[in-house]
Amino acid sequence: MKALRRHLPVLDWGRSYDRRTLSSDLIAAVIVTIMLIPQSLAYALLAGLPAQAGIYASIAPIILYAIFGTSRALAVGPVAVVSLMTAAAVGQVAQQGTAGYAVAALTLAMLSGGFLVALGVFRLGFLANFLSHPVIAGFITASGILIATSQLKHVLGVPAGGHSLPEMVGALIGNLGQTNPVTLVIGAAATAFLFWVRRGLKPLLRRAGLSAFLADVLTKSGPVAAVVVTTAAVWGLGLDRHGVAIVGDVPQGLPPLTLPSFAPDLLGALLLPAILISIIGFVESISVAQTLAARRRQRVDPDQELIGLGAANLGAAFTGGYPVTGGFARSVVNFDAGAETPAAGAFTALGLLFASLFLTPLVHYLPKATLAATIIVAVLSLVDLSILRRTWAYSRADFAAVAATILLTLLMGVETGVASGVAISILLHLYKTSRPHVAEVGLVPGTQHFRNVLRHRVLTDPTLLTLRVDESLYFVNARFLEDLVQERVTEGCAIRNVVLMFSAVNEVDFSALESLEAINHRLKDMGVGLHLSEVKGPVMDRLKTTRFLSELNGRVFLSQYDAWCALARRPEERAAAE
Amino acid sequence: MKALRRHLPVLDWGRSYDRRTLSSDLIAAVIVTIMLIPQSLAYALLAGLPAQAGIYASIAPIILYAIFGTSRALAVGPVAVVSLMTAAAVGQVAQQGTAGYAVAALTLAMLSGGFLVALGVFRLGFLANFLSHPVIAGFITASGILIATSQLKHVLGVPAGGHSLPEMVGALIGNLGQTNPVTLVIGAAATAFLFWVRRGLKPLLRRAGLSAFLADVLTKSGPVAAVVVTTAAVWGLGLDRHGVAIVGDVPQGLPPLTLPSFAPDLLGALLLPAILISIIGFVESISVAQTLAARRRQRVDPDQELIGLGAANLGAAFTGGYPVTGGFARSVVNFDAGAETPAAGAFTALGLLFASLFLTPLVHYLPKATLAATIIVAVLSLVDLSILRRTWAYSRADFAAVAATILLTLLMGVETGVASGVAISILLHLYKTSRPHVAEVGLVPGTQHFRNVLRHRVLTDPTLLTLRVDESLYFVNARFLEDLVQERVTEGCAIRNVVLMFSAVNEVDFSALESLEAINHRLKDMGVGLHLSEVKGPVMDRLKTTRFLSELNGRVFLSQYDAWCALARRPEERAAAE
Repeated sequence: MKALRRHLPVLDWGRSYDRRTLSSDLIAAVIVTIMLIPQSLAYALLAGLPAQAGIYASIAPIILYAIFGTSRALAVGPVAVVSLMTAAAVGQVAQQGTAGYAVAALTLAMLSGGFLVALGVFRLGFLANFLSHPVIAGFITASGILIATSQLKHVLGVPAGGHSLPEMVGALIGNLGQTNPVTLVIGAAATAFLFWVRRGLKPLLRRAGLSAFLADVLTKSGPVAAVVVTTAAVWGLGLDRHGVAIVGDVPQGLPPLTLPSFAPDLLGALLLPAILISIIGFVESISVAQTLAARRRQRVDPDQELIGLGAANLGAAFTGGYPVTGGFARSVVNFDAGAETPAAGAFTALGLLFASLFLTPLVHYLPKATLAATIIVAVLSLVDLSILRRTWAYSRADFAAVAATILLTLLMGVETGVASGVAISILLHLYKTSRPHVAEVGLVPGTQHFRNVLRHRVLTDPTLLTLRVDESLYFVNARFLEDLVQERVTEGCAIRNVVLMFSAVNEVDFSALESLEAINHRLKDMGVGLHLSEVKGPVMDRLKTTRFLSELNGRVFLSQYDAWCALARRPEERAAAE
Repeated sequence: MKALRRHLPVLDWGRSYDRRTLSSDLIAAVIVTIMLIPQSLAYALLAGLPAQAGIYASIAPIILYAIFGTSRALAVGPVAVVSLMTAAAVGQVAQQGTAGYAVAALTLAMLSGGFLVALGVFRLGFLANFLSHPVIAGFITASGILIATSQLKHVLGVPAGGHSLPEMVGALIGNLGQTNPVTLVIGAAATAFLFWVRRGLKPLLRRAGLSAFLADVLTKSGPVAAVVVTTAAVWGLGLDRHGVAIVGDVPQGLPPLTLPSFAPDLLGALLLPAILISIIGFVESISVAQTLAARRRQRVDPDQELIGLGAANLGAAFTGGYPVTGGFARSVVNFDAGAETPAAGAFTALGLLFASLFLTPLVHYLPKATLAATIIVAVLSLVDLSILRRTWAYSRADFAAVAATILLTLLMGVETGVASGVAISILLHLYKTSRPHVAEVGLVPGTQHFRNVLRHRVLTDPTLLTLRVDESLYFVNARFLEDLVQERVTEGCAIRNVVLMFSAVNEVDFSALESLEAINHRLKDMGVGLHLSEVKGPVMDRLKTTRFLSELNGRVFLSQYDAWCALARRPEERAAAE
């Protein structure tokens, strides 16, 4: 029963659902629905799909997430970055506008959903951690720039394509001569209006005496206003006959039951994009969910979140949608509007279902330029180049990762960008740990403590080399230690004994074990003893399972001071030798 | 001048070269030359190239390595694993036996040489460390099995191809009916003879009173004897007319000057294989070089080794060869035979030049089955499945890496095998560090020490949660800490303050900084304070460049005891509260 409740969080919050919660959830749902209608249409166009796909992708997925997800306020549906990634992935296997394109988008959602559910079931959510924060920030910023640029063609009314900044800008400039002036007027006016709504309207409404809540709701309705006014203008003035691209016929009805493709070729081609989309979507979603949960001292379970998002994507795959995830803006709106349980999401789904059944004829004359304007205004808030300055100030390695991610995303497209970002972060981390800090130590006079010979006045003995290794030993730094010991011993001809002080070594993997064996054999060939000191319990337990200790040309000392007493020549011996 | 000597080690050992060194080097060169002639021909066939390519790949590369390399005993030339990898890589872009195939092999050598030189010049040799020892061991073992299997077709005299074990075995079984009995007799006899030479001859010779040195030389000449006897048999009995495949015409003369291709398509297709070949070759070579150097208390410089091997490969690319590296068996022979300087290598090159000028007509009737037998006997010594048992006993993670590498290499071929091995090692390492050990600690009564609450009887305070993090914080484990703190705080309702004890945190990267900021904000939203204690100097310096400390909803304590004194309720307070 507990396991069932763990995997079906709806059983948890559903039991205590009451009239007060219902009214909070209903109010939130109305506000989010109004915000989502133009957004869904717009993101579908960004993904290269017919407008209704955006609505469909917001119905079944929201309901499924409400059942399986653990966040009380997360609003699931099409989002900008995932729509862009969908366009990039599907564009590689099918031509936009064909039936194959829509099927590929469904297939992508299915793969993404399956992958997320698998991660959740096998509790592999930690894989998402391989995306470092700078890489995510760089990727989101670059994606925002790419998305805004990709929408300029709708504002100008020119044909243009491409999945990287140079391609897009090149196509735009090449077709600039074909700009449709009427489209440009609509697009520019809508963009300017929406920027004003976002920046200037709310303070104005507050000064006019409206409550913060109402001012917020009206501000969030800006895109709806832009949609209504420009649609009316196109319809009333017959602007579509002057070359203004419109959304056109959108079928009226329930979301269709659809079937993704199971063709192995297509699955193979879409697998990697699906993985990237899943991980990016999950990382975005979980951080929103955790931030909102913390405000009410609630918890989200990352592994169950994977299952919730996976179910949502599987839902999208079978009801005419495309990959979805938890959106930042809409979740915050949902939370601020008072949503208390995932039922708010279910009510939003009902609102969108109503729109799909009755409102779609109204968007026939909606100009694409208006949708492009809503996208541009929404995504420019994602662009945050300050991450470059902040990482530069904090750490050059993190700066390198973010700069590379931004550049590669802009120049090579989203998939290469994010994949390279992950690879670069991991390589930089491995590089940092590949040269661990190793200090040569000596005895602090009058104590039993050992300190770095370069920083402290300590006693040393030319026949004894003691190295303190400040990192766990594993394959990436094992050879470093081999090289270091060999270098020191060939330089210091008087050395008769080497002690490796293991006080900071938490692990010795098999590669490091073999390196220690190699060091032991090589030192033996040179007639030099190898000793260990201050080996931690778990490391010692491991070493005891091997022949290393019995073959060791030296001893294992409990403390470094014991090693010093046994191996260092006393002052009188030294005087005699000199 | 010092820099010049660093990059031209020949200037170093050349100055002290004398008559004694010369005679040692000459003796070693004669022995190695005799061993190398059949080996070079055989490995060229393994790589899918004409026999002479093996000889050519042993001349210029050896001389270039003698100039640029730092090992005194390393013998450079074609080796089994690299030959197999060459066949796999080149086989993907050209048909064996065509001119394009040979050019692709040259191009692969050029790319590999360029990559190695670049690694050396930019001191990036640490990249080779990403191959963990278990992955290398698994890869070499699986390659040995693949190579031996690939040679069975020559022993049987049947056509067969493939780059993975199932392909090879399938082709062999399918063509078993076409077995040529004469070829099989030659191949089986040569294999049996060579196994006997390797196992039984040396003790026999020693018992017969020969010196260890002479017994060793005769044993090493086994392949030459097999070559001479079987060639004579084929020639004398006209066995080639009975379907015994022979080496055929091998051009007589100096190594030709050749030009690799610079076609971008070909370079692109061969880049990844070239990188893998370079790294595998370098790792094998450097470990042989270091082992031999240690025996004479000499040093090899890994970065200069990269340049030496790179120069050797560039040499191979322009003189009709293919990718080369330092060979294990021949280097040991060279060392044992007394080679003291790289000049021994240069003399070996002269020996092979002589062979190329005058001896090639003699190998016309050499049966391919004999060469296959020398390969089979040589590579089976590479197969060491005990690595599975040893890693299993030591660490499951290392076992997983080696088992996956062996399986994937056998089933999918060398490139997929080694690439997956690297990926798996890195992922397992990241997984291990992604869930660092975090202990909740309390005060040991009567002291100022803090210990794990689960292992020791310590004082705690329900309003104060103190977590000691036993790992540096970076992107892979940053979210783990976020989740953990949120989980603990939502479970422990009485908690008013959280202290993170940083005594074992050597680094906080930008992702971890953002996680700490998120933890701080979320705890603030819950009305809980966040404090740090025992932060190391370098970590504190970093944190001071950010706004984290000023926004911290709590304090930074020098010691954990200070934190306890400031935050924990005294017993009397606690009594009053209860």
